[in-house]
Amino acid sequence: MSTQDNVAPGRDLYPYFERITLRYADNDTNGHVNNASYYSFFDTAVEGFLTHHQLRRTVTEQVRTLVVASSCRYFREVAFPGYIDVGVRIARMGNSSITWDLGVFTQDSDVTAAARGEFVIVCASPETGRPTSIPDVIREQLLKLSA
Amino acid sequence: MSTQDNVAPGRDLYPYFERITLRYADNDTNGHVNNASYYSFFDTAVEGFLTHHQLRRTVTEQVRTLVVASSCRYFREVAFPGYIDVGVRIARMGNSSITWDLGVFTQDSDVTAAARGEFVIVCASPETGRPTSIPDVIREQLLKLSA
Amino acid sequence: MSTQDNVAPGRDLYPYFERITLRYADNDTNGHVNNASYYSFFDTAVEGFLTHHQLRRTVTEQVRTLVVASSCRYFREVAFPGYIDVGVRIARMGNSSITWDLGVFTQDSDVTAAARGEFVIVCASPETGRPTSIPDVIREQLLKLSA
Amino acid sequence: MSTQDNVAPGRDLYPYFERITLRYADNDTNGHVNNASYYSFFDTAVEGFLTHHQLRRTVTEQVRTLVVASSCRYFREVAFPGYIDVGVRIARMGNSSITWDLGVFTQDSDVTAAARGEFVIVCASPETGRPTSIPDVIREQLLKLSA
Repeated sequence: MSTQDNVAPGRDLYPYFERITLRYADNDTNGHVNNASYYSFFDTAVEGFLTHHQLRRTVTEQVRTLVVASSCRYFREVAFPGYIDVGVRIARMGNSSITWDLGVFTQDSDVTAAARGEFVIVCASPETGRPTSIPDVIREQLLKLSA
Repeated sequence: MSTQDNVAPGRDLYPYFERITLRYADNDTNGHVNNASYYSFFDTAVEGFLTHHQLRRTVTEQVRTLVVASSCRYFREVAFPGYIDVGVRIARMGNSSITWDLGVFTQDSDVTAAARGEFVIVCASPETGRPTSIPDVIREQLLKLSA
Repeated sequence: MSTQDNVAPGRDLYPYFERITLRYADNDTNGHVNNASYYSFFDTAVEGFLTHHQLRRTVTEQVRTLVVASSCRYFREVAFPGYIDVGVRIARMGNSSITWDLGVFTQDSDVTAAARGEFVIVCASPETGRPTSIPDVIREQLLKLSA
Repeated sequence: MSTQDNVAPGRDLYPYFERITLRYADNDTNGHVNNASYYSFFDTAVEGFLTHHQLRRTVTEQVRTLVVASSCRYFREVAFPGYIDVGVRIARMGNSSITWDLGVFTQDSDVTAAARGEFVIVCASPETGRPTSIPDVIREQLLKLSA
């Protein structure tokens, strides 16, 4: 997975950013954001991307989406208080799967990502629950947004 | 408790607001923000208030603060996506306790609070763990902010 | 509210207990369970009570339940690792509302509750969303369980 | 990463299991456990493993541990109510890193894992924050437990 790479990406890799405010409860006993909290940032950011591009309703109407894999590589600690900007980018589209690439950036705008995640979802038929092709209308729009 | 009142307050009751972005995971099976999530908004907002007024460090240096009671009254459903503004106000100061009044407002700026919470903290001695008076410097600043 | 009382109840007040394992992320920067986490214990315990007494399905089929108020009084700190037993008891039944009384007990079986919560739900019509009477079949069973 | 494999492991792969009770709030809008919740299971299970083998205190005294990578592959949906057993196994030990392999099993004891995760921590010097070798006493005990 690309998230295994040791190089933290810059902001310029991502065409869309979702701002997320940190919460007191995100910090764990070590005083920094718990590793699990990053995954709540990731699906929030992907939802934000879909909503921003008016794709959320289309996705919901046509397919059920299931998360089949997720991963994160942590480069630097992040801590409440403050906010993060989560960069969202489509890394790959298969027949039925979409791989999202997510970069977590802190308020210092010139630095590289503090963490980088991947999030793989599969489109499933609402009737059978089995994997199904990404609907054409969604694929086309996502391709345009990836260009 | 005032949170038992059936009247949702307006924005004008609160001198300070903390904006908090909602997250996908805040919604529960019912498709709205889970009742427990509101409490993660409350301590986040109180921390924001203290940080904004440069009180956070002073509090940390002089006393340990413990939450001894919390409550919330839910007036309307709130749901991801979107953000909330949490109004923060000091409701009461005792010898060692501070009661915070918190109002949860959605993006429709003219409506009353969707939820209202209370949050009671007690100042404790870092050495003995026993309740101790609110340090004078903090009491004075909080009184000024409540005026 | 009864949770405003300063007296921590004993285990004998509660006819039902739900065991909940604590999680690493429950602890906050202070090294103890965050105040908001208790509320995730409360609805988990009420669901456990309803499921144990075969009421969950009946409730779901007949009404929608909304949380209208919740509160907690914290008597002692609780910390991961370990588990808690949450005592569940019906404190009051109104025409459309049910008030749950919840006691959080740690593993030392002889001590009083570390925290006590209240949780008020209102039955609403699935069609109109307006408050509706507690269905008779549920009221009768809950009364029997409260006797 | 091994979590990219498409084969869900059985219970026999894991020498230790941590039982974790699910919570109402683990379920998201889809009515199943949210993908992010699995990561709160993982660090809870690793902590349980360390505590069970009396390693937790030794680790804390000698090094600081940082999560540098995590991942999860989801094979089947899991939903509250109920509990899970999280299998814990050391997958690899480097000079300063430990890779944990984690399997999430539901109550049907004969089936394969519903999810499989990896969790990579690095030992860091409490003074410099830089990666440092796994202390010998910990390495020896972990090797024995992996044999």
